Amino acid sequence: MKIHIIGGGSIGLLLASRMSLGGSPATVWTRTPEQADLINREGIRLREVNEGSEQKDELVARVEGEWIGGLAVQNGRGCESPRFLQNDDSGCFHWLLLTVKQTQLEDELLHALRLLGERVGGRAAILCMQNGIGHLHKIADATNGAIPVFAAVTAAGARRIGLNEVLHTGKGEIWIGDFPENGEKGTNPWKYQQKMLLDALGKAGFSSFLSNEIHNRIYYKLLINSVINPLTALFDVSNGELPRHPRRLELMRRLHEESRLILMEAGLKPGQNTWEELLLVCSRTSENVSSMLSDVRNGKETEIQSINGAIISLANQYEKPAPLNRAVTDLIAAMTIMP
Amino acid sequence: MKIHIIGGGSIGLLLASRMSLGGSPATVWTRTPEQADLINREGIRLREVNEGSEQKDELVARVEGEWIGGLAVQNGRGCESPRFLQNDDSGCFHWLLLTVKQTQLEDELLHALRLLGERVGGRAAILCMQNGIGHLHKIADATNGAIPVFAAVTAAGARRIGLNEVLHTGKGEIWIGDFPENGEKGTNPWKYQQKMLLDALGKAGFSSFLSNEIHNRIYYKLLINSVINPLTALFDVSNGELPRHPRRLELMRRLHEESRLILMEAGLKPGQNTWEELLLVCSRTSENVSSMLSDVRNGKETEIQSINGAIISLANQYEKPAPLNRAVTDLIAAMTIMP
Repeated sequence: MKIHIIGGGSIGLLLASRMSLGGSPATVWTRTPEQADLINREGIRLREVNEGSEQKDELVARVEGEWIGGLAVQNGRGCESPRFLQNDDSGCFHWLLLTVKQTQLEDELLHALRLLGERVGGRAAILCMQNGIGHLHKIADATNGAIPVFAAVTAAGARRIGLNEVLHTGKGEIWIGDFPENGEKGTNPWKYQQKMLLDALGKAGFSSFLSNEIHNRIYYKLLINSVINPLTALFDVSNGELPRHPRRLELMRRLHEESRLILMEAGLKPGQNTWEELLLVCSRTSENVSSMLSDVRNGKETEIQSINGAIISLANQYEKPAPLNRAVTDLIAAMTIMP
Repeated sequence: MKIHIIGGGSIGLLLASRMSLGGSPATVWTRTPEQADLINREGIRLREVNEGSEQKDELVARVEGEWIGGLAVQNGRGCESPRFLQNDDSGCFHWLLLTVKQTQLEDELLHALRLLGERVGGRAAILCMQNGIGHLHKIADATNGAIPVFAAVTAAGARRIGLNEVLHTGKGEIWIGDFPENGEKGTNPWKYQQKMLLDALGKAGFSSFLSNEIHNRIYYKLLINSVINPLTALFDVSNGELPRHPRRLELMRRLHEESRLILMEAGLKPGQNTWEELLLVCSRTSENVSSMLSDVRNGKETEIQSINGAIISLANQYEKPAPLNRAVTDLIAAMTIMP
């Protein structure tokens, strides 16, 4: 089994470094050749935060870096085969862990995934680590069913602090499940490959599980993200600071309730105390700057469309009101200053 | 001429105290009998901020207080005549300066204004000091054309710091004009009464003018308010602090542009540099807490519907987009915690 991490962002570097350190060599596919070169030369520096201590352990993982543009090189004579399979005579299985943001799932990458599907037949699978749900359909459409698509949900947190340096900010389980719209995958070969992947993730230090209800877990995470991400970005505060302001707490409560009612229509299971969980996430990740706040601070495109935009789409589909999801979506868009 | 100030809020107390001190006795009509009693007993304490100095002058104005409920007392036998006209044999002219917020223009008060119109015929006029525009139609409808309705726009600022105590926080002109939808009032008797009122306001220290384009001035103020009020309330900052945060400045810019395009359709004159003026207002009133922020801090109903809600109505009427006005309206409503 070979692990490919598509995307050299925070989660990509975290997974690649820990899996390599855990004995499962991983290749990181990066957006720039420079980042791939740097990773090849120096490896990935991983900093672990020790609970209850100021000290951070630093580990260096030897990881292979590859430029994502090489996944499918096009030249005048048409498409060459995916670069990373050219020397692949082993017949081994390839796991593609897709860690780029939904906003970076561009045509070029989708095209590469499609080519890959045609080339490797039954010897590869995609695991999507993105927030939200829109991307699952997009990838299934792009690969035309040739590569099975699985979904993963994780609460693990990381912050990239350099092109080959990552801080592991929060521990969290990884849940992996079928994305049912992409066909039934409950047969033996995939189950075996899933278990191999779980094993590799386990050795890398992630508590990982198969889930029969990955949609519920996706919606659950979407619900939490739909409140914490836009409101921390709007008010320019850390996760822990957000609920300390009484009127922002009230706004959290109402946005949570609006999102919850919409996601229940879409299949979120009832009976989960999501409001208490939301407050717990804020207190557990108290010092963290949410990815959306980090993006607006740095003038980068945010994931607002993948998170609150996805909830608005579901609201339209199920004819539920979504004024607060709309409000934060429009305000975050309006306060993002692109460089 | 007799001056009646309807409403014992910040602008009401400011006008009443300064007009009384300037030699034009004024009666303040308050929502509670207690406030009227207190004003009768102790007068109104007016604090003036001296520019460039920490020191505040305090003046005490002898002002008559009356309970607003007495404007039209209903008993078992039907409606009595308006309380304040019972001893009115002088035939003098009554100016009713309506300073209550749009949100407090309730049926009872509108009913009293209607009764008044029937009773005094041509010897009274209403001057509306409210933000926004919706109330002008409401009052014209309620009084059924029996009392002429004029509109006023002022940039003067005040903060009520007690039931009979007010701080004059910002100097500003008062502009008075016809509200044309309520019929032509360009004839002599009204012009004379308007001039008498201007004279009284001038003696009270307010630079006051008649305006031929009061709609333009109303829209101009509405534009400024539609940005400063909701955003200071949302971000919990003073007027001067708001534009110091680069992304909030960007949001100000876009909300201003959205409101401006809508108000231009409604009749705001082009060629005014409203964006520069907006920044100037923020810097001139740097330390001020906007009325909307003050309201959300105190768990009071805000004027969001009278300000951004009014712009949304115009946007609907002229088929212009108003996503940011909608966004702030929904968020302010969602973060207001009523006691």
